[in-house]
Amino acid sequence: MAVNLPPPRAEDLFPVPGIDLAFAAAGIRKSGRDDVMLMRCAPGTRAAGVFTRNGFAAAPVQICRQHLLAGSSVRALVVNAGNANCGTGEAGLAAALVTCERTAALIDCSPREVLPFSTGVILEPLPVERIERVLPACVAALEPDRWLGAAQAIMTTDTVPKAVSRRVQIDGTAVTVTGMAKGVGMIEPDMATMLAFVATDARIAPACLSRLVKTVADRTFNRVTVDGDTSTNDSFVVLATQQALHPEIHDLDSPAGGQLLACITDVATRLAQSIARDGEGATKFMTVQVEGARDPDEAARVAKSIANSPLVKTAFFASDPNLGRLLMAIGKAGLSGFDPTAVNLYIGDLLVISGGGRAASYTEEKGAAAMASSELLIRVLLGRGAAATAVWTCDFSYDYVKINAEYRT
Amino acid sequence: MAVNLPPPRAEDLFPVPGIDLAFAAAGIRKSGRDDVMLMRCAPGTRAAGVFTRNGFAAAPVQICRQHLLAGSSVRALVVNAGNANCGTGEAGLAAALVTCERTAALIDCSPREVLPFSTGVILEPLPVERIERVLPACVAALEPDRWLGAAQAIMTTDTVPKAVSRRVQIDGTAVTVTGMAKGVGMIEPDMATMLAFVATDARIAPACLSRLVKTVADRTFNRVTVDGDTSTNDSFVVLATQQALHPEIHDLDSPAGGQLLACITDVATRLAQSIARDGEGATKFMTVQVEGARDPDEAARVAKSIANSPLVKTAFFASDPNLGRLLMAIGKAGLSGFDPTAVNLYIGDLLVISGGGRAASYTEEKGAAAMASSELLIRVLLGRGAAATAVWTCDFSYDYVKINAEYRT
Repeated sequence: MAVNLPPPRAEDLFPVPGIDLAFAAAGIRKSGRDDVMLMRCAPGTRAAGVFTRNGFAAAPVQICRQHLLAGSSVRALVVNAGNANCGTGEAGLAAALVTCERTAALIDCSPREVLPFSTGVILEPLPVERIERVLPACVAALEPDRWLGAAQAIMTTDTVPKAVSRRVQIDGTAVTVTGMAKGVGMIEPDMATMLAFVATDARIAPACLSRLVKTVADRTFNRVTVDGDTSTNDSFVVLATQQALHPEIHDLDSPAGGQLLACITDVATRLAQSIARDGEGATKFMTVQVEGARDPDEAARVAKSIANSPLVKTAFFASDPNLGRLLMAIGKAGLSGFDPTAVNLYIGDLLVISGGGRAASYTEEKGAAAMASSELLIRVLLGRGAAATAVWTCDFSYDYVKINAEYRT
Repeated sequence: MAVNLPPPRAEDLFPVPGIDLAFAAAGIRKSGRDDVMLMRCAPGTRAAGVFTRNGFAAAPVQICRQHLLAGSSVRALVVNAGNANCGTGEAGLAAALVTCERTAALIDCSPREVLPFSTGVILEPLPVERIERVLPACVAALEPDRWLGAAQAIMTTDTVPKAVSRRVQIDGTAVTVTGMAKGVGMIEPDMATMLAFVATDARIAPACLSRLVKTVADRTFNRVTVDGDTSTNDSFVVLATQQALHPEIHDLDSPAGGQLLACITDVATRLAQSIARDGEGATKFMTVQVEGARDPDEAARVAKSIANSPLVKTAFFASDPNLGRLLMAIGKAGLSGFDPTAVNLYIGDLLVISGGGRAASYTEEKGAAAMASSELLIRVLLGRGAAATAVWTCDFSYDYVKINAEYRT
């Protein structure tokens, strides 16, 4: 069902010097599919991350926050799908720590250098012994070119594995950036989305890496929404193995910093858009672009009001040009001093709303034709300032209900 | 599909002295059904109302705001279904005014004493000449006992007409309160919901009536949500014909004021709950009650975060006890200084979440049994204060998507 999202090919995913991957079927998901993923990082790897703002942050998120202090060295990530280890209290924290300790013993590092992640059903105890049982085999199977299988192992209701690679020249040195993500529902990241891991061999100072992660999250994962629901487990981590030979990057605003930022933003954008393209039940991929706002926050409020409206999303599913719903969603955003007569709106190149009302040149036939596409751009011009933003989302179909009514059964 | 919502019986709807009703099929809705309703009020009737906060307030809402100043006399309401007269610019305002003028000429009052209302598709011109054409016949057909037909005439995708009557003794005089409402989608009133009209023969001073309307709206219509979308046309108006013989009410806190407030709140509560019971595609009626909040606003934020979560609503549709989604929705509300371990949650009498985690006594079988009911109470105890509120909503089914994907076709 994913919208224009072919699965990545293994040969398009470049290994990152210093990163090895493995995965296994631990039986946490019922299907017998691979559901545990281990990523080992070479000594010296630095990491930074952003995590969910949901008040019920899952146990692994709480552990990651403790382990990922500025400049932390990270030696491994352990991820399970099928169980979120959230709402699990002290036992959940203990289970996440056991994962770290067991992995640390196997790859010879400190438990503090291991980051645990979980995704799946909330409010059920994590059967951590099943993860422990497969870890030795995972360590034995670690290889640098297993990104595709790793991306598959972290999927829950995803229909397509999500992984992207890019290379960039920094001070004459080729630097690799490869990332993976998972997530198709409970998606309105308030910080980062579900699980996304991006690795690079770039050399970058810890404070600069932290700033890079926040900047990239704001530009990419924080601009996706599937259903307006914010996961308890959202995590986005960038790993920099420091193995490339260019001089260390200390400043994101330097040419080298800008190059790395652009490359990682590119990878993260593709991953973030993949999440909307594979949104639960999606048949259409929609970019909601709001221009002419007083500030970026206001632009985002209008864009998310449209992107999260069930009525807008069902109308796009049906290709029914019931476009008054767009007007309702703009008005609902609650902008102060809002002037409806200043609003123009386009679907692709088609002017739909002009001066707050239906454009004279608009016809239903044109509206239906514009909505029939599986790739849609909704452009809102508020006419009250110079700020703009864009949000990526998908439509709302029978299958969204079906998938979520039957998820656990 | 409405949940435990039998249609009202005509004999249960008491005429209100001073109120006459009529309706007709004007051909604004495609079905040939009655779609225009006229309510005539006796001279001396006072009215107060609350209206949508949506920035794209419809033309009739803008006219109502001008006509309904404090202490305004109101002589007629004209309502059409099938077209919202919203996003229609100057032509829309002119159409709403034509309705007022034409009605005023027919019943011999000032156009300012007529309130126009529209509900239906947004962004399409209102064919006001079709309303004009049926108004003379409506005036000729006015009768005091036509509440049921009137409630039917204002329906859009409603499956059941919504009307309720009560009587109350005030200072030894029997006072009647009868109301009607419509609305099943685009429902998260930010002030009042869709269209609701309540009439009484009570004698009440203008300022007191205004306060009564705001108080009742906050306790009733502002606590319903179907899909989190706020209509451009929400309107709630109380008409007091002043024909009862008790002394005029000047103070809502007096015994007589309290009696009238309680009776109108009762009628409005039934109407508001009817909207959730007849929510588009609804199979379950859910009351989300949040207690132990620091203030009512915080309680409402948590209650609406649960009531509007597509993941919670689809899980209830499926009777799948995927109750971690409730925890996600509570955490997503973004309370400051939130302590997850203080949270307890019940479905009916079943303790599901205790101290922020799954209750030891909880089992999936018990959860599934509790969710199978068509009438559900979700009780959240936040453990951080004494404020409480309740919100009414419905589940989210295939039919919500079907209804909204096919609404206009």
